[in-house]
Amino acid sequence: MNEELSLQDLIKELNLKFQSCQSRYIGQWVELLRIKSISTDVAFESECLIAANWLVEHLGKLGLSAKLLETGSKPVVYAERKVDASRPTVLFYGHYDVQPVDPLELWSNPPFSPELRDGRLFARGAQDNKGQLFYVVKAIEALIEVGALNCNLKILIEGEEECGSGGLARALSSWKEQLKADILMVCDTGSLAPGLPAITMGLRGIASLSAVLEGPNKDLHSGVHGGVVRNPALEIARLAASLHNSDGSIAVAGYYDGVKEPAAEDRQLANQVPLLMEQYQQLVGVAPDGGEQQYTAWERRGFRPTIEVNGIHSGYGGAGGKTIIPSKAELKLSLRLVAGQNPARCLELVQNHLRQNCPQSLKLSFTDIEQGGQAVIVSSKSQVIQQAAAVLQQVCGTAPIYLWEGASIPIVTDLASISGATPLLVGFGLEEDNIHAPNESFAIEQFRLGFLYAGAFLGSVGIGSSKGG
Amino acid sequence: MNEELSLQDLIKELNLKFQSCQSRYIGQWVELLRIKSISTDVAFESECLIAANWLVEHLGKLGLSAKLLETGSKPVVYAERKVDASRPTVLFYGHYDVQPVDPLELWSNPPFSPELRDGRLFARGAQDNKGQLFYVVKAIEALIEVGALNCNLKILIEGEEECGSGGLARALSSWKEQLKADILMVCDTGSLAPGLPAITMGLRGIASLSAVLEGPNKDLHSGVHGGVVRNPALEIARLAASLHNSDGSIAVAGYYDGVKEPAAEDRQLANQVPLLMEQYQQLVGVAPDGGEQQYTAWERRGFRPTIEVNGIHSGYGGAGGKTIIPSKAELKLSLRLVAGQNPARCLELVQNHLRQNCPQSLKLSFTDIEQGGQAVIVSSKSQVIQQAAAVLQQVCGTAPIYLWEGASIPIVTDLASISGATPLLVGFGLEEDNIHAPNESFAIEQFRLGFLYAGAFLGSVGIGSSKGG
Repeated sequence: MNEELSLQDLIKELNLKFQSCQSRYIGQWVELLRIKSISTDVAFESECLIAANWLVEHLGKLGLSAKLLETGSKPVVYAERKVDASRPTVLFYGHYDVQPVDPLELWSNPPFSPELRDGRLFARGAQDNKGQLFYVVKAIEALIEVGALNCNLKILIEGEEECGSGGLARALSSWKEQLKADILMVCDTGSLAPGLPAITMGLRGIASLSAVLEGPNKDLHSGVHGGVVRNPALEIARLAASLHNSDGSIAVAGYYDGVKEPAAEDRQLANQVPLLMEQYQQLVGVAPDGGEQQYTAWERRGFRPTIEVNGIHSGYGGAGGKTIIPSKAELKLSLRLVAGQNPARCLELVQNHLRQNCPQSLKLSFTDIEQGGQAVIVSSKSQVIQQAAAVLQQVCGTAPIYLWEGASIPIVTDLASISGATPLLVGFGLEEDNIHAPNESFAIEQFRLGFLYAGAFLGSVGIGSSKGG
Repeated sequence: MNEELSLQDLIKELNLKFQSCQSRYIGQWVELLRIKSISTDVAFESECLIAANWLVEHLGKLGLSAKLLETGSKPVVYAERKVDASRPTVLFYGHYDVQPVDPLELWSNPPFSPELRDGRLFARGAQDNKGQLFYVVKAIEALIEVGALNCNLKILIEGEEECGSGGLARALSSWKEQLKADILMVCDTGSLAPGLPAITMGLRGIASLSAVLEGPNKDLHSGVHGGVVRNPALEIARLAASLHNSDGSIAVAGYYDGVKEPAAEDRQLANQVPLLMEQYQQLVGVAPDGGEQQYTAWERRGFRPTIEVNGIHSGYGGAGGKTIIPSKAELKLSLRLVAGQNPARCLELVQNHLRQNCPQSLKLSFTDIEQGGQAVIVSSKSQVIQQAAAVLQQVCGTAPIYLWEGASIPIVTDLASISGATPLLVGFGLEEDNIHAPNESFAIEQFRLGFLYAGAFLGSVGIGSSKGG
């Protein structure tokens, strides 16, 4: 092992590696991209197995102990390399499955025949997640070659991320011991501009439910019965409206219990990100003026819970009008949760609120109650984050931005919980990569930065301290 | 003429007539019912003309001057008989068109091959409206035969009532002089029990509109954008909820302007009707506890305006959930109006209210704005009503009930307005008649009561006073 390398020297070594091995790296990356591992379509079942086996073989050749773990659905690729129990353990999570390719006619090249154009590799999965997981694999290879991989390493690459991670989620609890780690490294996120590094500091939790409101036993004539009977279409609207106060805050009693205000430094970091909000109106067509008015848009997205109406439906929806009092109404809600909130408890509170606000003469019931998962949030003071930030500063020549995301990746929450590890979400994806769309691609330069980041982080995390966290 | 007949004697005469002519009356009624005058289906266009011509010929034979009036769509049957300009003029309105007959397999006899069973005549149109208009025609015939028709009579029978009365509504304004009358007699309503007479004292007005709320330029990810942007599904619910106060009253400023409290005696009459409300929960599956809580159910239906949500739609409505912020939402509203309210003004007030309550960052627009028509309401102190009540008491042996209906018949409103006549809505229909459904029928006994009522009213309205009103 070569513990004496400074971070600067390590990055120099990795850069030299990349320069001399770039063609081989890209060639192997292309090999992986040729495999049509679409997880949502059963027609590609065997291609998923081919991708999993390819990774097991590839990781085995690097000197890792690699195998498939059965999940009852698509297998998980698992590999590990133990150095020393006193050193920190990094659990790397990625996924070998990709999105479907429709509409095929919009692709410039066949999605599984990768093409290198204008410094980018075009193929389904070029970025999400085969490109991002493969720069980590190549960084591990390079570190092993230069004798600089000083941490214990566990690699978990699943094959169902694009269709809900069902197999992994079911299997996780029985792998608790095997997955214990200090740092959960994920490279499945992105940044806001080329060369600008970003650390994703949080993901919101999620839960969802549907409320069904039933009134008359059939649609009624709105003249004969209007003003006589309660109207389920109006009452579902009143129930939906009752969830929020006029200032945009949530009116459900107890919903904010346990929610902490963000630390001053995290709040400051979140608000420093200049790009997205200025472009917001242009991108989505409306101003970012929803939610709790005393918080900035970045704060609302990253640190504050929501209750969103995903659908509200009752009565006539066709052309013109129809003078009915609908017999039934439905309200579909999703809750985005932050640190300190329990999905099951929040679901209970919302149901209680709706029950209390529902007129007694109508029948309220709930369906599709889903406890998606708790939020993940990391402090900017965390040692892991500070180390990653130092690496990114060196690799990119500029300090990272800090993104508290509003979306949820329940499997990351589950993995962090099972492994006991601090999540570290750094990725080099960009909007222009068109993930989940035709002509997905990934810039070779972003791949190179990812390679340097992964190598420099994994090569330095074992130095100086015995454990991350 | 025979002006000396008392009401009692007149009813005796009519009863004798009915006894001696019953078979002929039913035979002619069957003839009319054999004509397949379905107005909504172009396949029955010529049958509608046959029905119209049959009525012209039939009314001509009674001694009336009868003809077809063109409307641009289906013709209107018009007949008149003038007695003396100093006598009141009654304008009778009916319709010769009938509802479609689907589902045909549920009929016990073919719908246009009338069958007499258990004291009822079964056929499409048996009650609505061929049966009810035909007892009036036969009563006129009988009055002419006994020399007791002492009022001026105008008869208007249209052929598009079941599909919106478009032709008549368009033609009306050019017939203003021709249709001038004192009393607008309509026999197209019903009562609550066999033998129990009922006077319909009011019909609510109607207007309708749809509100469309647009936000983001596409459905957004509810995690990425939740709390950042306003959610059109939630905001349409808040707009719908904003239309009413918590006590069920309408929150739109100015909406109640001009609405009068019902007269004490009308309120009392409306609340005397015992039957429907007790059965309400059983019939429609919910208690009659909607609307303004300080009014009884009958008062709310008859004397109070509403704003009803006929449809509310936004976002995902399929199985399970979908974590989106919908880009768009729609709200369909109908307004039921009472005397003193102008449909155009009420539509303006509702639009203003929604505009004022709409967040500035969302785009609100309105479509399908329809000014249906004003309310019709008659006072129980009106001389016409008191005369009709006296006739019904004599004919049925029991005092009539008074129904202020919640529904709207815009053509009656238009006819009352154009003719300047006081509406008199008395009918002998019952729930069991299955109008608009398979196995429509009308009891011979209800036909007989209708015949006696129409004859006794038309035979006595010219007596004692020179004008009704």
